[in-house]
Amino acid sequence: MAEEKKKKEYNFREFSTCEATIQMLQKAAADGVETAFQRAAEMKACPIGADSACCKHCAMGPCRLNSKDPYSKVGVCGATIDTIAARNFARMVASGCAAHTDHGMSMLDVFREVVNGRIADYKIKDEEKLRSVAASIGIEVEGRETMEIAKDLYEELERTYTQVDGEIPFVSRVPKKTLETWRKHGVVPRGAMREIMEIMHRSHMGVDQDYENIVKQCSRTALADGWGGSMVATEISDILFGTPKPLVAGVNMGFLKEDHVNIIVHGHEPNLFESMIDSVNDPELVAKAKEAGAAGINLLGMCCSGAEVLSRHGVPHAGNFMSTEAVIATGAVDAMAVDVQCIKQALVQMSECYGTKFFTTNPRAKIEGAQHVEFHEHEPRKCTNKVVEMAIERFKNRPGRVVIPQRRDMGVHGFSHEYINYMLGGTFRGSYTPLNDNIINGRIRGVAGVVGCTNPRVKQDWVHVELVKELIKNNVLVVQTGCSQIALAKAGLMKPDAAVLAGDGLAEVCETVGMPPVLGCGSCVDNSRILIACAEMVRVGGLGESIADLPVAGAAPEWMSEKAISIGQYFVASGVFTVFGVTFPTIKETKFHKLLFEGLEQMGFGKWGFAADPYEMARMMIDHIDKKREALGIMGPRERKLFDMADRRALD
Amino acid sequence: MAEEKKKKEYNFREFSTCEATIQMLQKAAADGVETAFQRAAEMKACPIGADSACCKHCAMGPCRLNSKDPYSKVGVCGATIDTIAARNFARMVASGCAAHTDHGMSMLDVFREVVNGRIADYKIKDEEKLRSVAASIGIEVEGRETMEIAKDLYEELERTYTQVDGEIPFVSRVPKKTLETWRKHGVVPRGAMREIMEIMHRSHMGVDQDYENIVKQCSRTALADGWGGSMVATEISDILFGTPKPLVAGVNMGFLKEDHVNIIVHGHEPNLFESMIDSVNDPELVAKAKEAGAAGINLLGMCCSGAEVLSRHGVPHAGNFMSTEAVIATGAVDAMAVDVQCIKQALVQMSECYGTKFFTTNPRAKIEGAQHVEFHEHEPRKCTNKVVEMAIERFKNRPGRVVIPQRRDMGVHGFSHEYINYMLGGTFRGSYTPLNDNIINGRIRGVAGVVGCTNPRVKQDWVHVELVKELIKNNVLVVQTGCSQIALAKAGLMKPDAAVLAGDGLAEVCETVGMPPVLGCGSCVDNSRILIACAEMVRVGGLGESIADLPVAGAAPEWMSEKAISIGQYFVASGVFTVFGVTFPTIKETKFHKLLFEGLEQMGFGKWGFAADPYEMARMMIDHIDKKREALGIMGPRERKLFDMADRRALD
Repeated sequence: MAEEKKKKEYNFREFSTCEATIQMLQKAAADGVETAFQRAAEMKACPIGADSACCKHCAMGPCRLNSKDPYSKVGVCGATIDTIAARNFARMVASGCAAHTDHGMSMLDVFREVVNGRIADYKIKDEEKLRSVAASIGIEVEGRETMEIAKDLYEELERTYTQVDGEIPFVSRVPKKTLETWRKHGVVPRGAMREIMEIMHRSHMGVDQDYENIVKQCSRTALADGWGGSMVATEISDILFGTPKPLVAGVNMGFLKEDHVNIIVHGHEPNLFESMIDSVNDPELVAKAKEAGAAGINLLGMCCSGAEVLSRHGVPHAGNFMSTEAVIATGAVDAMAVDVQCIKQALVQMSECYGTKFFTTNPRAKIEGAQHVEFHEHEPRKCTNKVVEMAIERFKNRPGRVVIPQRRDMGVHGFSHEYINYMLGGTFRGSYTPLNDNIINGRIRGVAGVVGCTNPRVKQDWVHVELVKELIKNNVLVVQTGCSQIALAKAGLMKPDAAVLAGDGLAEVCETVGMPPVLGCGSCVDNSRILIACAEMVRVGGLGESIADLPVAGAAPEWMSEKAISIGQYFVASGVFTVFGVTFPTIKETKFHKLLFEGLEQMGFGKWGFAADPYEMARMMIDHIDKKREALGIMGPRERKLFDMADRRALD
Repeated sequence: MAEEKKKKEYNFREFSTCEATIQMLQKAAADGVETAFQRAAEMKACPIGADSACCKHCAMGPCRLNSKDPYSKVGVCGATIDTIAARNFARMVASGCAAHTDHGMSMLDVFREVVNGRIADYKIKDEEKLRSVAASIGIEVEGRETMEIAKDLYEELERTYTQVDGEIPFVSRVPKKTLETWRKHGVVPRGAMREIMEIMHRSHMGVDQDYENIVKQCSRTALADGWGGSMVATEISDILFGTPKPLVAGVNMGFLKEDHVNIIVHGHEPNLFESMIDSVNDPELVAKAKEAGAAGINLLGMCCSGAEVLSRHGVPHAGNFMSTEAVIATGAVDAMAVDVQCIKQALVQMSECYGTKFFTTNPRAKIEGAQHVEFHEHEPRKCTNKVVEMAIERFKNRPGRVVIPQRRDMGVHGFSHEYINYMLGGTFRGSYTPLNDNIINGRIRGVAGVVGCTNPRVKQDWVHVELVKELIKNNVLVVQTGCSQIALAKAGLMKPDAAVLAGDGLAEVCETVGMPPVLGCGSCVDNSRILIACAEMVRVGGLGESIADLPVAGAAPEWMSEKAISIGQYFVASGVFTVFGVTFPTIKETKFHKLLFEGLEQMGFGKWGFAADPYEMARMMIDHIDKKREALGIMGPRERKLFDMADRRALD
């Protein structure tokens, strides 16, 4: 049976559109090594689970309802399909929110130690950002010392996590009408940890069994992520490590260097990576690498920690989530150090096959078989130096052939919302007014956030890229984060000259400002930058009073993680129409599905959408944007371009 | 198909040993109404899910491994069976801990408002308990005013939830050596909410993928339940509503009264019930009931809120978890008011069938189709009076025939650990010394906690009762909580004269002290009382230095909820051998299973055990107790009674 499996041949072009990844999947297959693509092809997703029609929340079950006839049965306790699917969804939101919030708390832990002077290796790098964040939540900044402000800021932001009553600090940034909607429906987060605890309680057997009430707590918990845990993570990272500004940087596996010691950092929290940057630049370690016969030490990022330092420092990025196994097949990776989230357990075995040194560094995320070198904020270099040293060792004894796909894609990254502000308005009149003006005058039809993971159940990057091309062609400005941003970077869309692919209006704006039609904003916690941008668009005026009024939409075309569900829910609760691809954990005919896909919008929130096809997804988003333009009275005389799926299919 | 289903005939004696429940199941079936017993019989539990061999933690799946050959496959991400089962287990612990912790926080919310003088309807009822709890965590009590102490106590206990670093306050009660084991393995809880957030982060895709590391966080989170959330819930409830003392009280459906307005409170938090007690005694409402033709208002409890007031005030208890549907079939229940946890969604439909008014009262737990009358601590009577009024209405228009099973079981309930102390030692020398002495001299072989739910996948109450009979026959003193306690009460084991069923040694002690061989301690959060009793046994001396040294064991023979898993894990992490029945979410051949069932004990903790058969379960617990006695050198000359399953089966 195992023999048969190995012989099975795949067309790797069906798995991915990323040339480097395809090449390495072929190499891995030739080497007899399997990746998540093969495992996904060979293991059918459980259809009952995928429809969220099973419940494991107590030992009277697990119960399985009939997804073809969802109201024909109930669970042993009597739970209906709506209760079951809503509770499952709640747990996804809980885990996604917990991931971002715990990440944010790690950042806050570092910040506290910096403020107290107990950490020497990090410092407040961006004082301007510190002051603006403090001012945004009502802290007095005029004429005060940086460290005084920092202490107050720490105390205020800690409330984001620990507070058990009241409202989280960053609600001060939420447009008034949006906040009113939240208050009306009782979904303003108190503190993130309380919301997570409560949703885990409410999704326990025999507690909340009203899908509408459960969805409320999903919104409250997700908002504690977006406007809470994630936003704190982003803002503190900017304060400690600098707010990103656009810079030209490279993406793809071609940035591995055969004659260098190659080190990849993969995960999500920036502190490990920041320290690694110091370590690879340490003259002693560089000398050691040279002694070992290397031309130098070459550092790359992957996944979201990669996206952060790509945006912040221009460190090249080797690829997104679905390339993390493939990159190891190059044989060129001397060490991979990981922290938290989206680390495939299979990377350990893959690393063993290719002799790559694989390190876990975070006490919360060990992997069986991986070497654990714990990272401590108080002496970060102890961990990262050791990783570099081990990488040098491996370079000396590289076991096999090195094959590096020669793909290198340059692009502009690092569009923080602060920079967008500056870019559009200039230094002295930094403002979103020109953006709003261009939306009102119709050059820009609207703004779309395209974000999220890659998933081996769909062709890697393809849905992201096709969707974004379709959007910009229709004059929709695209902002991006996470693995989606890397997909588009590889497709060349992050360059200003990609404006040729944009519709006339958007192209004109891009050429005037000198920006690409697709703006990369950072990692997946940095989706909070998009929330702030939305709030700023409302504040500047002319586009309605709440985020729900804006001609904007969001998408996660190839999502896979529970974080994506939390992100989706906080965008929806903030007022954004958010379309997911691949699959969605609901059954269309159910009341729970209808609440997410229709009902929430009627309550003043955004709503969910689903489409596996990128062109259908684009159509849905553009239709929504047009609906909002119409409501705002800015539809203008421009002829509405209608998508006709039949025509499109004929073209394909 | 639906027609066919209705015709299916069951022997209800196979479902339950509770005569009243059997009788009502028969009636419900005759009335054409289905209950959880039938649904369980008709819906096979998903075998893959039951083995914890499926993972729904990301949209690359749900992945299903092969439980017959668990290492033959991995998930799409590469997650092994050990990672998958450990992560699933972690989520159960998270939800169980969250349920108890959120309950505890509700109690603390009430306490804060009482302390601040903002609530009039509740007050500090047990000042002695307030002082002793405060003193136990190092608060100065000598010569201070009650309210001063209460304020300090509130602030200290709030740390149990909100603290993000350090150790929760009640570690001061943990035996030194047990605490050393926790510190050594890094499992001392910081604050309950941080542990819940972290475990939800760590169980996210691509984070913690080392089952040993995951189990550590399971222990830390579960300990934040047992010595944190649950313990706060119990202690604050005692302070506000009085510490239970033994009293004679009745259990079973026969306490429903046909000529009275019958109201049942079902759930977990005592504040609703306490207010309901006031409402049913309100002369105006009693007069209204009489006007409606009733002889009076009759209040009963069910499930854990029932167990609390049974212990605290002697309010009769109508039955445990698996009787909540059956009781409605009597037609005698005019209103059922529920708060949180273990409320079957099917109760709404059941209530509709029999015209029972069904009310949800807690904002965290609504049920589709139920009438929601929200309970507010600041004006509790508003909710409970309304429920009483609606019950009177229903009494006036009782739609169908009333059939009340004439089963009434009297017993002694309310053995708080404080009372056990007093009972054994007397007023002036209250102490566990006599208990320890009797264990050392061999009259009492050891102590067993038998707790937990009932589950329609096994014959209701049977496993509980047979296990406890077997234990006391072998001179093991049994302490109980929750639905298990109610099962034994119905079997008559809560009466002092049940001592005749005990072995000679235990019987002698029971007769001397005048106590039953089975001591009911309250609801499932009150398992914390058992922890305190264990700590006290260690403190008094002669039985080792840590809880793991004690000749004690625990069991949840018919468990069903995730709370049970959290409770089990905190007992195991505290040092107790804990045996579960029904099913267990692991595969025996896996490393994760071996860690829970063997490895933890080697690390100085307790360990898990599993047996579906009550006699086998008793044998395992007694063997463990004997092993501990041997280690303590107190095995004595007493002949060890060996259980022989073959002999037993022959007897049966």
